Amino acid sequence: MKMERLERTAAEAQLTELSGWVLNDAGSSISKTFKFANFVEAFGFMTQAALVAEKLNHHPEWFNVYSRVDVTLNTHDAGGLTELDFKLAKAMEKAAARGGV
Amino acid sequence: MKMERLERTAAEAQLTELSGWVLNDAGSSISKTFKFANFVEAFGFMTQAALVAEKLNHHPEWFNVYSRVDVTLNTHDAGGLTELDFKLAKAMEKAAARGGV
Repeated sequence: MKMERLERTAAEAQLTELSGWVLNDAGSSISKTFKFANFVEAFGFMTQAALVAEKLNHHPEWFNVYSRVDVTLNTHDAGGLTELDFKLAKAMEKAAARGGV
Repeated sequence: MKMERLERTAAEAQLTELSGWVLNDAGSSISKTFKFANFVEAFGFMTQAALVAEKLNHHPEWFNVYSRVDVTLNTHDAGGLTELDFKLAKAMEKAAARGGV
């Protein structure tokens, strides 16, 4: 399924349903830094997110050091943000809430 | 257990037992980019490495996008490289060989 790139206003509207995510200047990706109590919680979050990502066939760019996970989402094929990014972002929010401190 | 920082020559000697790892200019960290067939293999590798890391109580800095995992290891408390970094690097090599393409 080919996803359509969201215009900035559409992306901004979607962003209001999320907490702590930032749209980049080009309007082409969203990012968030997740903080956990320790590595086990951080990697537990990553594992949950990885399962969702694989199911969606839509994968994050992410960096982890100990209790911190920096996530960036965009849809390479669409050259920007699509519904898939917001779907994954919402799933990550849920995973973080479950696995949280 | 307080680990002692390895001198550059000691780090270089350890490095000869590994494949594809690079020592940074300051001699304070080692890095490697691992490539896999897809996300499942990349994250499978990360999961194996995460279990070892937690057991060693020594954690990587790593970045993942799809099939690629960039790893940097150092020992923050020692301000450079210690035996722990090479222990984790070797475990990662094993995990990558198991889960590899």
